[in-house]
Amino acid sequence: MAETIFSRILRGEIPCHRVYEDERVFAFLDINPIAPGHTLVIPKAEVTTLDLLEDEDAAALGRALPRICRAVLAATGTTDFNVLENNGRGANQAIDHVHFHIIPRAADGRGLRTKWLPGKLEADEAKALAAAISEKLQG
Amino acid sequence: MAETIFSRILRGEIPCHRVYEDERVFAFLDINPIAPGHTLVIPKAEVTTLDLLEDEDAAALGRALPRICRAVLAATGTTDFNVLENNGRGANQAIDHVHFHIIPRAADGRGLRTKWLPGKLEADEAKALAAAISEKLQG
Repeated sequence: MAETIFSRILRGEIPCHRVYEDERVFAFLDINPIAPGHTLVIPKAEVTTLDLLEDEDAAALGRALPRICRAVLAATGTTDFNVLENNGRGANQAIDHVHFHIIPRAADGRGLRTKWLPGKLEADEAKALAAAISEKLQG
Repeated sequence: MAETIFSRILRGEIPCHRVYEDERVFAFLDINPIAPGHTLVIPKAEVTTLDLLEDEDAAALGRALPRICRAVLAATGTTDFNVLENNGRGANQAIDHVHFHIIPRAADGRGLRTKWLPGKLEADEAKALAAAISEKLQG
């Protein structure tokens, strides 16, 4: 993958407000927060999208997330929050290095806003789709 | 925590379109998809919000996520997608059991829509906040 600004942050060439680091995971404040405490959690591995993350990095990231969430909530005095991870330009990914946003919901309403347009799962389509996904997972 | 509909799905009392299962993780199609392939990934542990998830469950969930994402993309023929996890009513959590949404971006534009209102991280505030979060993580 191409070098990103996160590679330079990881190497310490660009400063950041670091909140957490372990062997495989790094976390720091988003420089353009949509709410106070908006934090980014990234793998140290230079991987573009989540589907490409290897097991050990993914497990380390998963393990770190609740710990970092707890600390962000405690430090900001909030209870509600969203975790968002975007993959690909069409899904609003801005930096080509996997990053999870932890976004507290501030008392004044600042935080993640989503527009949810639910459809309905049709039984036949769902059956075929679930079988296809399941098969890929076993392959 | 209170029993939720996911407890009943996990016990097999309510049917679902299952796509993945391991010792600690379960995944199935969302019954009200916002795009084809919209999948929910949950810990088997009955935990309300992500900050409360224990290390082993969190690591297992983290490890499973990229694998499930790969399968969803392959089965739906999509490349872009969002991963979203909501915590608390104020952050749009509808079911009180941790669940990660995997939401492909369909060719017709269906998928997650977000409204992003970025602020600016002020240096002094950021320094204090990062120190506070970091301290909680070490505590």
